[in-house]
Amino acid sequence: MTTVIFQLICPDRPGLVSRLSGWIANHNGNIRHADHHTDEGAGMFLSRLEWDLKGFNLSRDATSKGISDLAISLGGKAQLHFSDEIPRVAIFVSKQSHCLIDLLWRVNSKEMKMMVPLVISNHENLRDICEQYKVNYKHIPVHNENKLAAEKYMLEILKEYKIDLVILAKYMQILSPEFIHTYPNIINIHHSFLPAFKGAKPYHRAWERGVKLIGATAHYVTENLDDGPIIDQTIVHVSHRDEVEDLIRKGRDTERLALARALRFYLRRQIMIYQGRTAIFA
Amino acid sequence: MTTVIFQLICPDRPGLVSRLSGWIANHNGNIRHADHHTDEGAGMFLSRLEWDLKGFNLSRDATSKGISDLAISLGGKAQLHFSDEIPRVAIFVSKQSHCLIDLLWRVNSKEMKMMVPLVISNHENLRDICEQYKVNYKHIPVHNENKLAAEKYMLEILKEYKIDLVILAKYMQILSPEFIHTYPNIINIHHSFLPAFKGAKPYHRAWERGVKLIGATAHYVTENLDDGPIIDQTIVHVSHRDEVEDLIRKGRDTERLALARALRFYLRRQIMIYQGRTAIFA
Amino acid sequence: MTTVIFQLICPDRPGLVSRLSGWIANHNGNIRHADHHTDEGAGMFLSRLEWDLKGFNLSRDATSKGISDLAISLGGKAQLHFSDEIPRVAIFVSKQSHCLIDLLWRVNSKEMKMMVPLVISNHENLRDICEQYKVNYKHIPVHNENKLAAEKYMLEILKEYKIDLVILAKYMQILSPEFIHTYPNIINIHHSFLPAFKGAKPYHRAWERGVKLIGATAHYVTENLDDGPIIDQTIVHVSHRDEVEDLIRKGRDTERLALARALRFYLRRQIMIYQGRTAIFA
Amino acid sequence: MTTVIFQLICPDRPGLVSRLSGWIANHNGNIRHADHHTDEGAGMFLSRLEWDLKGFNLSRDATSKGISDLAISLGGKAQLHFSDEIPRVAIFVSKQSHCLIDLLWRVNSKEMKMMVPLVISNHENLRDICEQYKVNYKHIPVHNENKLAAEKYMLEILKEYKIDLVILAKYMQILSPEFIHTYPNIINIHHSFLPAFKGAKPYHRAWERGVKLIGATAHYVTENLDDGPIIDQTIVHVSHRDEVEDLIRKGRDTERLALARALRFYLRRQIMIYQGRTAIFA
Repeated sequence: MTTVIFQLICPDRPGLVSRLSGWIANHNGNIRHADHHTDEGAGMFLSRLEWDLKGFNLSRDATSKGISDLAISLGGKAQLHFSDEIPRVAIFVSKQSHCLIDLLWRVNSKEMKMMVPLVISNHENLRDICEQYKVNYKHIPVHNENKLAAEKYMLEILKEYKIDLVILAKYMQILSPEFIHTYPNIINIHHSFLPAFKGAKPYHRAWERGVKLIGATAHYVTENLDDGPIIDQTIVHVSHRDEVEDLIRKGRDTERLALARALRFYLRRQIMIYQGRTAIFA
Repeated sequence: MTTVIFQLICPDRPGLVSRLSGWIANHNGNIRHADHHTDEGAGMFLSRLEWDLKGFNLSRDATSKGISDLAISLGGKAQLHFSDEIPRVAIFVSKQSHCLIDLLWRVNSKEMKMMVPLVISNHENLRDICEQYKVNYKHIPVHNENKLAAEKYMLEILKEYKIDLVILAKYMQILSPEFIHTYPNIINIHHSFLPAFKGAKPYHRAWERGVKLIGATAHYVTENLDDGPIIDQTIVHVSHRDEVEDLIRKGRDTERLALARALRFYLRRQIMIYQGRTAIFA
Repeated sequence: MTTVIFQLICPDRPGLVSRLSGWIANHNGNIRHADHHTDEGAGMFLSRLEWDLKGFNLSRDATSKGISDLAISLGGKAQLHFSDEIPRVAIFVSKQSHCLIDLLWRVNSKEMKMMVPLVISNHENLRDICEQYKVNYKHIPVHNENKLAAEKYMLEILKEYKIDLVILAKYMQILSPEFIHTYPNIINIHHSFLPAFKGAKPYHRAWERGVKLIGATAHYVTENLDDGPIIDQTIVHVSHRDEVEDLIRKGRDTERLALARALRFYLRRQIMIYQGRTAIFA
Repeated sequence: MTTVIFQLICPDRPGLVSRLSGWIANHNGNIRHADHHTDEGAGMFLSRLEWDLKGFNLSRDATSKGISDLAISLGGKAQLHFSDEIPRVAIFVSKQSHCLIDLLWRVNSKEMKMMVPLVISNHENLRDICEQYKVNYKHIPVHNENKLAAEKYMLEILKEYKIDLVILAKYMQILSPEFIHTYPNIINIHHSFLPAFKGAKPYHRAWERGVKLIGATAHYVTENLDDGPIIDQTIVHVSHRDEVEDLIRKGRDTERLALARALRFYLRRQIMIYQGRTAIFA
């Protein structure tokens, strides 16, 4: 059954829950989920409300207008989604297949409500997998000389395919600040427990440091490498018997899990970002 | 700062969040936490609302009356607490000290807001610990012949000490249905991952079965042994190198953690029980 | 580099490590891994030794003979493997694809050293996946009337394909004791934390019981349902917000992980079974 | 029953397991545990052997001499322990009690085989606890002006009490390189998942970064702050609902667990240090 999902961040004040839920009730909305959080240090109120579209007596457009007015009157920022709007997602990969296959399988088995019309890669390796799943595969090689042109081309394709979200599923290239500025809605999976081992070769560095746990971090991409808001983190135990290649192998299992969990939060509109961090209303 | 905590279970219908939060707003309450859950299968709505006592324009008695009226009008059951009411807790133990010391330390260090005026044991062993923490220690031996009399005496003491909650912190006796019927607010820590290994000697049976994980379960006590609503469960890995005594040792760490987590949920009034299960609004 | 892997279970006595490693050294073997365990309660000694084939001055046949003689002289049971012998594995499935795809991907990406020449299913659903991975797919319907005949046919095919190991990767049928007797080398993934929720519909029963953790168990199959030696167990947290379908979804991730871990132990010859339990020399 | 524990690190070569176990067998030793590891990248062989003292036909002194000769002949370094030698441990604390109480309880309940004759603190706060457990408590204030003198005094006391190991159980002072040079056997518990959040206020920084997991690391102390060999790491989940004080509270539980686990490895002589990392033969 279709639901309306409303997310709001605004300065805290008394009566907000009542005001928001009252507005919904006044329009005959039946609330399915309601979750709120007050960050007292920041003085901010975060709310996520989800109610049945059926029976709600405002059109989608009128709902959008009403939400917008509410947010303005509260000095906050709101987002509105309808659960039958299926996001269009592009997956960027390089040579490694584990996250890609995992995501395509989850889409195919209806576990994840999203469409993947497009996979972009700087290598040819994963074309077959995409063809099996009937996903368009664009091979766009990237090297120092052509990086800007390559990114410009990518941005055009994202526009052409009407992409809502980009997932970096082990895409081993750093996107330029310009790209991120133009297209800010990007989730990355980093193969370490951030903020430990930012940057290149985290498993090699974890092995050298002799850690007893390794991890993976799914996070939004910002202009500062591996520094965006963290959505989910997972870990796995390692021992002195594990070589770097064992860390890489164990890491694959924990990477795909962190990415899938984060993406699920995204698809259910459970993530709110503020002050460089996320609140997950799961 | 003192808060009012209101928990409600009632049949689901549209407008409940608005009605509850509206009632609070009408009396000038500033909501700190609001959490709701709809169990669609059962058709039940569960809500936990917490707001500042300061500024709220009803007295405690009037709040209690208002809550009660609300619950009746919704065909539901409500609970009301004020965060400055510190629960009086009795801890039942036998010979093992780990859960007792852990709880007393948490109380002493202000981590847990409760009073422990009373420890009851069927053995003498843990008297010294209680004296260090200035807690009254009642040694009440229990054997087949005196069980009813012993329990009757316990119930009298619980009444005398105005005990709100009994914790079975490795109390190796089974309380009679009569005791539980008379005094129903009891949390137990069972040293297995329920429903596996109900009853006696779970670590021995886990070892014999050759499991690779052992656990602990904090649960409400009902008349059916180890069958009450589960509040929290924790686990720890074991291997073929672990003997039964290693399971017991590892188990101690996970037992005290599950019990402390469950008790914290209780003290913050985050547990709701329905249909033999719990919802934890943490 | 090829290694020789020797596993021994025998009654404990002094000098066993020296005797075994001395035998290897006498034949110029360079030990890569050596792991031993003494089960004092059972009075048993378990050993796993792995050494380089290169430089070892016995032929494979002579090694086999030597190992056999050693085991007899110690009153024990030995197993010998060479790491370049790649096991031939048949996967049994019903309609669910997650474990199958996971395993085929791990084989394809060289993470798991095994061949999968054959998938057997009582349904048609997963044929396409197998064809993508170029694996033979046998659809053998099973119902009450044809069960014996169907199993007889399966056993013939297993023989024809020279299968070393059968994996029940969400095969929702119970194999007969006759089948298991004839073909005893079977690993199953059960979707509960055994011994909790043996048998049918474990996620439904876990939900009803209100557990806070669910799990998966990879185990050897014996004639007693869900009672064979446990190889690996994994868990995942659940809350009151999770419906049965969420348990099923979360369960898929933990099932495929437990099965893959167990299978990896098998392929590396790290499992030893004794007295209904396993020792994992990982 | 008393055992002999022998740890060796030496360059790898064929025949080492046989040579070591042969030497033990030749002297009639019955091996209880044998664990070896070859670090192929480093070309190093690590071995831990444990056998019954009873029946072994060398005196303790002769064993020591034999071990030493073996190590020299193999170009390696050896350590020898007898399980009836109970280590004398000094615990350094500041104001926080959770790790101290946890350790004293484990010693008292015979879970940990060590003696704690001495607690040193730069504050008075934890004297009562130590008196309850009949442990000498030395209050040695430390500030910028007296640091060298204070450390000199500490070193004298450590000598006087014949301390084998120092545990920094939330000792919120940085020891000077001179102290560490003079007294190198020190285990610290750091309240982060190293190498993330080295240095001061890790929970505050973890909160600001918005991580979804926090951790604790037990490690050997070296002259570079928080950079010594890691023995054990534990983690706990956090969410946006957790304030800094919640991280601190949750952290206490995971800190004491990591420290206790690490210390147990130490007491059982299961840790080997090489190249800035540890191998844990558990």
